Amino acid sequence: MKKKIQVNATIIIIGNEILSGRTQDTNTGSISLWLNSLGVKVEEVRIIRDIEEVIVTTINKTKKKYNYVFTTGGIGPTHDDITAESISKAFGLKYEIHKEAFKILENYYNPGEFNKGRQKMAWMPSNAKLILNPTSGAPGFIVENVFCLPGVPSILKSMLGGLKNKISGGKSILSHTISLSTVESEIAEPLKNVQNNNKEVEIGSYPFFKAGKLGVAIVIRSIDKSKIDNCNSQILEFINKKKIELISKN
Amino acid sequence: MKKKIQVNATIIIIGNEILSGRTQDTNTGSISLWLNSLGVKVEEVRIIRDIEEVIVTTINKTKKKYNYVFTTGGIGPTHDDITAESISKAFGLKYEIHKEAFKILENYYNPGEFNKGRQKMAWMPSNAKLILNPTSGAPGFIVENVFCLPGVPSILKSMLGGLKNKISGGKSILSHTISLSTVESEIAEPLKNVQNNNKEVEIGSYPFFKAGKLGVAIVIRSIDKSKIDNCNSQILEFINKKKIELISKN
Repeated sequence: MKKKIQVNATIIIIGNEILSGRTQDTNTGSISLWLNSLGVKVEEVRIIRDIEEVIVTTINKTKKKYNYVFTTGGIGPTHDDITAESISKAFGLKYEIHKEAFKILENYYNPGEFNKGRQKMAWMPSNAKLILNPTSGAPGFIVENVFCLPGVPSILKSMLGGLKNKISGGKSILSHTISLSTVESEIAEPLKNVQNNNKEVEIGSYPFFKAGKLGVAIVIRSIDKSKIDNCNSQILEFINKKKIELISKN
Repeated sequence: MKKKIQVNATIIIIGNEILSGRTQDTNTGSISLWLNSLGVKVEEVRIIRDIEEVIVTTINKTKKKYNYVFTTGGIGPTHDDITAESISKAFGLKYEIHKEAFKILENYYNPGEFNKGRQKMAWMPSNAKLILNPTSGAPGFIVENVFCLPGVPSILKSMLGGLKNKISGGKSILSHTISLSTVESEIAEPLKNVQNNNKEVEIGSYPFFKAGKLGVAIVIRSIDKSKIDNCNSQILEFINKKKIELISKN
């Protein structure tokens, strides 16, 4: 079967602690890098509040717009964990005890430890598919194209591996980076020409400061290696002409 | 004049490099913490692609919905820096050389260094107000309630201070954190009761791992210190009763 060329996704980070600046989100990076490797392009990320109406509206808008929707956060045992109930409402499904999740959690905890707070983590949209959690027991879940993961970065990362077969990606997105000892304005004109001559390739230019030196990273992204190579040669050509120092390429 | 109780904002992070997972966004945290201190609550963050249509649509939706919109990224000299032109389109304004910005940049660079790439950074929506840049010269700009800042975190941070008088915030949002040596499920029930009895206060519960130990941080947020204190007492009461170890409070 021929792979679809473009498969896309959105990530919905659910959590007031990110919006207040208290906690630094790192889940976007983990999910994006993993999706890239499966040939799925993240088109948009939204960070939203723990408010049911906001979650329901956001899910209903994005599940139609993108091939995959990933949510993080709000599936723990406390009152501010309202993702599972909100997803149920978004899909018009019952919010109920998921028997398999209940069993997993019952086995995970020592006898007497599976208290009411923990039992809350077995409440899910009716007939949700489970995402197994090798780190801390409590599963995530899938409803149609919406994948619900926890907010704790290490737990989230440990759950991605098991999801691989549930994602039907397109061609992998390849990238090539050229790091230069220069400033953006020096290369703006010739780089623009290269982009105009290579419209199907995405060329980004990112200034950086490293060890007190200014530099620019040019990132070329495409699903087609030959197009990246072609673009790369054109960039190296003007760099040589301008006698700009090449720091690295990979 | 009585301060408005609730002033809100959204942050629009413009940049493919964040969506691809290549670069970790830290601007959300910087802007959020700064806005909190001015009494402005960040309701939502969107990370979007460097695509004109996407930027225009996102700006047009959010500028009506929130008191303030902050954008980061896309105001440099290269072809992928399209924020200023997109904001011009969103507001139906001419995209043209801003005389004051041009002068600032002309003075900032040494004679002969103010090349075409750098001149691009003086192109802005007609009559935009400038946001001065003490770090690297190139100003940001304001159109109505939309504030456009650069993507490089250190430069962005250096520009926030000068914006203080341009933001008319509400009452400052105060927060109090109680760190406990426990797990969320142990406190889920009594914490829910405290939240139900204190509806105007926002109570968040966040598990953490530190030095191999599990813990939970309870964060109470409100504009009213007495409500936070009240909530705090109720939480400390059930913590004492349950003999849960208090790690810190501040």
